[in-house]
Amino acid sequence: MPDIGGLALWLDLIGIFAFAVSGSLLAARKGFDIIGSLVLANLAGLGGGVVRDLVIGQGVPTSFTSIVYLAPPLLAAAAVYLVSSRLNRINRWILHFDAAGLALFCITGTEKALAAGLPPVSAALLGVATACGGGLLRDVAANEVPRLFDHRDIYALPAFLGAGLTALAGTLGVLTPGTGVGIGVVVYALRALAMRYRWRAPLAARGWARPGRSRDG
Amino acid sequence: MPDIGGLALWLDLIGIFAFAVSGSLLAARKGFDIIGSLVLANLAGLGGGVVRDLVIGQGVPTSFTSIVYLAPPLLAAAAVYLVSSRLNRINRWILHFDAAGLALFCITGTEKALAAGLPPVSAALLGVATACGGGLLRDVAANEVPRLFDHRDIYALPAFLGAGLTALAGTLGVLTPGTGVGIGVVVYALRALAMRYRWRAPLAARGWARPGRSRDG
Amino acid sequence: MPDIGGLALWLDLIGIFAFAVSGSLLAARKGFDIIGSLVLANLAGLGGGVVRDLVIGQGVPTSFTSIVYLAPPLLAAAAVYLVSSRLNRINRWILHFDAAGLALFCITGTEKALAAGLPPVSAALLGVATACGGGLLRDVAANEVPRLFDHRDIYALPAFLGAGLTALAGTLGVLTPGTGVGIGVVVYALRALAMRYRWRAPLAARGWARPGRSRDG
Repeated sequence: MPDIGGLALWLDLIGIFAFAVSGSLLAARKGFDIIGSLVLANLAGLGGGVVRDLVIGQGVPTSFTSIVYLAPPLLAAAAVYLVSSRLNRINRWILHFDAAGLALFCITGTEKALAAGLPPVSAALLGVATACGGGLLRDVAANEVPRLFDHRDIYALPAFLGAGLTALAGTLGVLTPGTGVGIGVVVYALRALAMRYRWRAPLAARGWARPGRSRDG
Repeated sequence: MPDIGGLALWLDLIGIFAFAVSGSLLAARKGFDIIGSLVLANLAGLGGGVVRDLVIGQGVPTSFTSIVYLAPPLLAAAAVYLVSSRLNRINRWILHFDAAGLALFCITGTEKALAAGLPPVSAALLGVATACGGGLLRDVAANEVPRLFDHRDIYALPAFLGAGLTALAGTLGVLTPGTGVGIGVVVYALRALAMRYRWRAPLAARGWARPGRSRDG
Repeated sequence: MPDIGGLALWLDLIGIFAFAVSGSLLAARKGFDIIGSLVLANLAGLGGGVVRDLVIGQGVPTSFTSIVYLAPPLLAAAAVYLVSSRLNRINRWILHFDAAGLALFCITGTEKALAAGLPPVSAALLGVATACGGGLLRDVAANEVPRLFDHRDIYALPAFLGAGLTALAGTLGVLTPGTGVGIGVVVYALRALAMRYRWRAPLAARGWARPGRSRDG
């Protein structure tokens, strides 16, 4: 979306803020201190994009050249510090901010990979990696089983869909602010519905009866 | 092994498939869904190579430019979905596929690092990182203590040997398909024997009596 | 500090050794074998610098081009093998070696980022990432909640201070061996005092009463 000027930057910053809030809320739930909150906000908000930029390989990742990218994690940690103790369902809030970040990043990640000249399928895969990477780093760093792997709901599938649609729109030359926002709404709605109605994907193994059984089960 | 045309690619794809199967089997054992299986298959199969390519720094990692690299993880997740519920010793199968990936990757990783002009010792180290990296990412993402650190068997030592022999053969100019396959067989055999007879390396601390004792023990 | 010749290299090697010892000691405490000790020594000692070099993007990370960088992790694993079973407070030793690495890396990391042309604020952030990255990789790989997030003491704050002071000194043109060593002493002293007197930072959430409460608390 090189033609839409500041919009791409704003979408990026909003996505970073959303993931950063999910990181700071996780820090609050785990009882980490304010510095841990800042670190998890940065990992969740900027981690996926740094991985994307390293893979694309066009110089220093944007998060380290533009100071403006440091604002969303700072704001997120401050906001969580001020309000999170009044949230009585902190985990639900983590999930919604995480979903917003997922919706935005699968689009902006795919778009940046397309702009760097990657083939559409690879660009979509990198978009998924951008969208899931920050949350994966956040959960791994906090020593949690990543939300991404929770079989009780559908996490990565909306990102696959959003990244695929973005790559398709980019290839067809119809990736505009309108289609971008439309794809983002679809991804967020799908993720929210999956959480609300506890949609589940098939397990990794067909007919697997008891997840979590013994190691040699 | 630039002289052997398609063979290097096939060895790479087989190594990716082997690690990807180990990732999908781990997803099955942990009760993750099919998407988690795909993600762990990609992390285990492609993660080590992406890290290697980022370190070598010659443009976008191959996994993101050639679509063919996406096939092994897809096939692995599908195969595990279809057959893993009939495996009654799933952990043993993880280990054998993991060993095959280890044997192939310590050779191809070292060879690519040599081709990129790294000195032999560094090339061997990067080969070990390629071979152990995917499995480490797989286990860390699944919130498991990495297999790599299990003191009950010998994991990284065969990779060190294989990478060292590959760097030596490359330096001497005798790295052919024949020597490559020979090294791979030695690495796999060593790893399989280590598992079969529970060979152990010395512990990190001499005379350390009780692993897992209290934190200030 | 390009003007001070070998000193920057020695500080780097000492920092790597300090972090590497913390990695090998963690391997000893967790009951890993000598290979796990080597791997954790390399991850803790070289991991932060590799991430820094990948972000700066000026060719292959130094750890993979200069064989001398492999010596500190080897020495660290050997030293821990020989003496750690006689340490009766192994966790305290981990903390002190970790603090020394932190003090050195927040300075050398920031300095290298400045030399690569990053703006001062980003250079300081990358210095913090270099300083905290190795320890984070070490703890994450060993499946521990990272020390970085322990609310019972102050870990990253001294690194932020040291990186900030280094960026400031670099911008003002007064980054000499003297000021560098001075900043390092301040960072180490601050970290040691924080451990000794159990200084705490505010929690991630204001008024949060019970860290570690239930997920939907």
